[in-house]
Amino acid sequence: MNQPQPHARNATEPDAATPDTQPAREARRAPGGFPVVGIIGGGQLARMCAAPAAELALTLSVFAESDDAAAALVVPHAPVGDYRDAEQVREWARGCDVVTFDHEHVPADVLAALEADGVALHPRPSALRFAQDKLAMRQRLSDLDVPCPAWAPVSTSDELSAFGEQHGWPLVLKTPTGGYDGKGVMLVRTPDDADAWFAQADGAPLLAEEAVAFEREIAVMIARSPSGQVAVWPVVETVQVDGICTEVLAPAPDLSDDAAERITSAAITIARELDVTGVMAVELFDVGGGEFVVNELAMRPHNSGHWSMDGSVTGQFEQHLRAVLDLPLGDTRARAPWTVMGNVLGGEYEELYPTYKHLMARDPGLKIHLYGKGVRPGRKIGHVNVFGDDLVGLRARARHACDYLQGTVTE
Amino acid sequence: MNQPQPHARNATEPDAATPDTQPAREARRAPGGFPVVGIIGGGQLARMCAAPAAELALTLSVFAESDDAAAALVVPHAPVGDYRDAEQVREWARGCDVVTFDHEHVPADVLAALEADGVALHPRPSALRFAQDKLAMRQRLSDLDVPCPAWAPVSTSDELSAFGEQHGWPLVLKTPTGGYDGKGVMLVRTPDDADAWFAQADGAPLLAEEAVAFEREIAVMIARSPSGQVAVWPVVETVQVDGICTEVLAPAPDLSDDAAERITSAAITIARELDVTGVMAVELFDVGGGEFVVNELAMRPHNSGHWSMDGSVTGQFEQHLRAVLDLPLGDTRARAPWTVMGNVLGGEYEELYPTYKHLMARDPGLKIHLYGKGVRPGRKIGHVNVFGDDLVGLRARARHACDYLQGTVTE
Repeated sequence: MNQPQPHARNATEPDAATPDTQPAREARRAPGGFPVVGIIGGGQLARMCAAPAAELALTLSVFAESDDAAAALVVPHAPVGDYRDAEQVREWARGCDVVTFDHEHVPADVLAALEADGVALHPRPSALRFAQDKLAMRQRLSDLDVPCPAWAPVSTSDELSAFGEQHGWPLVLKTPTGGYDGKGVMLVRTPDDADAWFAQADGAPLLAEEAVAFEREIAVMIARSPSGQVAVWPVVETVQVDGICTEVLAPAPDLSDDAAERITSAAITIARELDVTGVMAVELFDVGGGEFVVNELAMRPHNSGHWSMDGSVTGQFEQHLRAVLDLPLGDTRARAPWTVMGNVLGGEYEELYPTYKHLMARDPGLKIHLYGKGVRPGRKIGHVNVFGDDLVGLRARARHACDYLQGTVTE
Repeated sequence: MNQPQPHARNATEPDAATPDTQPAREARRAPGGFPVVGIIGGGQLARMCAAPAAELALTLSVFAESDDAAAALVVPHAPVGDYRDAEQVREWARGCDVVTFDHEHVPADVLAALEADGVALHPRPSALRFAQDKLAMRQRLSDLDVPCPAWAPVSTSDELSAFGEQHGWPLVLKTPTGGYDGKGVMLVRTPDDADAWFAQADGAPLLAEEAVAFEREIAVMIARSPSGQVAVWPVVETVQVDGICTEVLAPAPDLSDDAAERITSAAITIARELDVTGVMAVELFDVGGGEFVVNELAMRPHNSGHWSMDGSVTGQFEQHLRAVLDLPLGDTRARAPWTVMGNVLGGEYEELYPTYKHLMARDPGLKIHLYGKGVRPGRKIGHVNVFGDDLVGLRARARHACDYLQGTVTE
């Protein structure tokens, strides 16, 4: 890995090191010198890159989980493979000029193999690590004096008890890797609550954090290019129910300019010091009095940035493509005084097409974004955006649209 | 044709009437009852339907000229065929729930065959005829008392001379079918100018029109659904150079509310009376004093509506999809006081990727839309949109971006 080999772009001959069982069909490029952006993972984040990629004449190549993955339905070049299989991923990456991610679950050995091949990965594994491993993230942010909840690695029930004695009960216990949407996070009221997790961790440390008494959750999205250019969107409020984001208000209401500036500044520090490339979400707790602590980092387009697709001059998916290609970044200003995003969760209705007709008739200004996914109760299957001057009215419109698509209201 | 047969959707068995040489691979649908929209023609208009189709979980199937057509680069299901071959088109259309058009050149016999099969065509051939045949259009609009230039069918040099004596020289001569972007249109100064055209027309009438002394060109886009719902965008000014639209200003500056209302009303009359379904562009001459005459109709998304992709709550491509599916139409209001669209024409530079980097750095608010086409001098290869409060500044930004991409300015 210390002597990276040149990355063979546009290779048509089989690589001696790679079995020729999966001939790499190349994605078809637009003429004019435009690159191929590879995305590992075919979920909705990859899917939503398709529109800005087409506008900019960029070609996407999606390494998909299945041929009915959200992105595979709308991207012509979406070979199916296993992102845990380094050889499959390496073979595919030979046809890409840059590789980025739909999710943060690509194993370290696969990332290392790609890096050794000289593939341009963004974010780089050295940065991505801090989004994949919450213990590493907490250590690094603390070193940078970015406000965090009190935290400690805990490997035993005794260590957990000691942390609880110091910082109070209940506390929050997290698996350092693999969690999302409330999974891998537990509110621990007594040390016994964590017995099963410690048994499963088998000696590996878990992350204990104080249960922060926050007033609300907020988030900020930032883009950073390999050249070091950064662009930050307005700070937003994220409303969570049962650990899942249901609503985003952009900008965050009643946030002082001073607090917004300090949050933006923290995001820039994190992006720069962790050498983030691409877009990153910084999720925070607003603890009142203009103070905040960082909750999570995500180094990819993020739910808290979906509002930007209709609400900002440059949406997060366009910006992510620009950032990973080291193109100059776009204007992140809001286009309307308020934009409200509502997440559409699966409900009882499987037939969404007849359902959304009614929404279109009721609200001609509603921007519907569906992911092409089958309905399962609670699954994120899309989102809606509305924008305008009246925050209360916008929230009611977004809420109604989501409830109607979920089937929890019927008119 | 009087007894349409049921349209076999999702047919997997070969049709007895259709040779099984081209098995119809079905476009992959998103789950949830979402339809497949077929588009005949794989140009930039089909390409720009891909983004809103994905948002609405609609599946596109593009009947493309070639596998590197603009739309074929971004749409997974884009079989290649000849739109003049009724059997090929019929076979493809079996996999579509509705069929619409990227261009207006599909022959009448192909349209008739599809209609006889029960395919839902939008616009319907009975309406499309008035966009395909300028003589039929002039007759119909005149019957509707919609203001038109003086016009007449002329089949001989003598008839042309008589028209010229009555309405003045020079006059405009048009081929009734097949023209676009200034092709099929000639300014005739003396009857002799038209000799070659009459010879080629071989007795078929051409369309003579008075050369209107206009102050500027304007256009209005309207959407109409099969149910009869209409939605009209603001009237725009279109700037033409050598018969090619180079710039669109939305809304048209200095247009009185009264004139805008009468133009909008004329567009609604035309759409309703011609039973247009989908979006239609009405191009007009502003002859001063609040008066106007209709120049051309286009029954599809149109260059004069590209501003709406970034400048309106609902862009013309989303609206076209909603209209042809008889979904409720979206809000057509402008999102900014002014939006300026500039057409990017091919110049000397073939490598656009290094070029547009500079534009992104210079103007972070520029919205670039490229069509994935190879550069040829004068070819429309993309457009840019900018929006804001300052019309003069916006025009300068759009102009610079287009000139820079064309290579006529270098900084």
